[in-house]
Amino acid sequence: MTGTSDLSDSSNPIQLGAQLYAGKAKILYATSDPNVLLAYYKDDATAFNAQKRGTIANKGEVNCAIATNLFKYLESKGIATHLIEQVTTDRQTIKAVKILPLEVVVRNIAAGSLVKRTGLELGTKLNQAIVEFYYKKDELGDPLFTDAHIALLELATPEQLQQLRKLGLEVNQHLQAFFNQCDLTLVDFKLEFGLDQQGNILLADEISPDTCRLWDQRTDNPSDRVLDKDRFRQDLGNVAAAYQEVMTRIQAAFAN
Amino acid sequence: MTGTSDLSDSSNPIQLGAQLYAGKAKILYATSDPNVLLAYYKDDATAFNAQKRGTIANKGEVNCAIATNLFKYLESKGIATHLIEQVTTDRQTIKAVKILPLEVVVRNIAAGSLVKRTGLELGTKLNQAIVEFYYKKDELGDPLFTDAHIALLELATPEQLQQLRKLGLEVNQHLQAFFNQCDLTLVDFKLEFGLDQQGNILLADEISPDTCRLWDQRTDNPSDRVLDKDRFRQDLGNVAAAYQEVMTRIQAAFAN
Repeated sequence: MTGTSDLSDSSNPIQLGAQLYAGKAKILYATSDPNVLLAYYKDDATAFNAQKRGTIANKGEVNCAIATNLFKYLESKGIATHLIEQVTTDRQTIKAVKILPLEVVVRNIAAGSLVKRTGLELGTKLNQAIVEFYYKKDELGDPLFTDAHIALLELATPEQLQQLRKLGLEVNQHLQAFFNQCDLTLVDFKLEFGLDQQGNILLADEISPDTCRLWDQRTDNPSDRVLDKDRFRQDLGNVAAAYQEVMTRIQAAFAN
Repeated sequence: MTGTSDLSDSSNPIQLGAQLYAGKAKILYATSDPNVLLAYYKDDATAFNAQKRGTIANKGEVNCAIATNLFKYLESKGIATHLIEQVTTDRQTIKAVKILPLEVVVRNIAAGSLVKRTGLELGTKLNQAIVEFYYKKDELGDPLFTDAHIALLELATPEQLQQLRKLGLEVNQHLQAFFNQCDLTLVDFKLEFGLDQQGNILLADEISPDTCRLWDQRTDNPSDRVLDKDRFRQDLGNVAAAYQEVMTRIQAAFAN
């Protein structure tokens, strides 16, 4: 199959169809079942709205493994996700959903754009987690949206928005507990959600060091503690090793 | 009195005290009464977070007259404001309030940063007015804040925020009706509010072509219709004449 043959191997029984979406870190393919897509995790990394580009060794496999484990964990806690199963080291089958064009960001500790926006010091612990929504629109630079902007562009109904906020905070509770078992502090993270054909909201996209800020509780050193894409954004070095370390700790926790 | 003597004249009985605040368009002075301040309206104009600077002829007097008329009008509609009275052509006495560090922006038509943020076309009429909050902090570039950011920095209580939103929409209703009488379309505007010693929220700062987008209903020409600070921001020319025209129409409507 032209352009997708590199994804076909003897161990993978999934019939690959058209490439539906080529993202910065993943490619989505149709399959013979219209309700099922295949997600292929790439090693490519981008930051600052794709102004910075690079590759992180083994990121595709590492993030696929991490996302699979975390989505299974969240499913076990009652969070509905798009995950069907991991089919090869860097591929998952997922339910076909209509992605809501909103990035749902949950923050426990001030970092990244929250520091720039508010002037809070990096590392300030928030009294309670906050949820932000960003409009997924590369050409606009993924701007922050208030509820009023979301209503204006009809990106989600008020009921969906309330549900997204609630889901974001629930996922945060579960992930914080899980990452604590891994000696990792969940600083903040980004989620995406999709609607299935019945209009149910499913957690979609991925959860990985690409989409979370994770700080190592085993060190206080401000640059050593960073075990996420900030190592790539800020050229801190040892990027692939950090991703690998997160995977190793998650797999160990998940095995218990 | 050093530094304030230029504001003292025989027709002005107000005893000027210390300069309390030097803003981009106004200077606030203490008076002999601690509950009363004097606001002096300047001809200075700035835009783009003070990266662009200039002077608009007679702006101080024109904006002082406009703001006085509009605040009196709003008072007559039951909106509590800080205005006591206009004491000279470019000076008002106002109640001393603690300014809330939030710009309350109300929008009826897409323009300015809403166009940049959402990608909506300039001039798109919104189905309903929206209220936005911006953190008044020059060094951060007055960023957009959600309710969560406001709570995080404790800039206003949830009750105050609800009241600010309600007041913003009420002021919008009244101003739209008033400006329509002047053949002016109120595109959007920025309000500031302050707390008096009893904790009451008073409308403060000013309302003028510096703080409103006003489009002339007597022309459809996209640059001719602009009768506000966008003439200065975008170098459209005839800035002072536009401000003067707004004042003339408001005074005529107010006289009726």
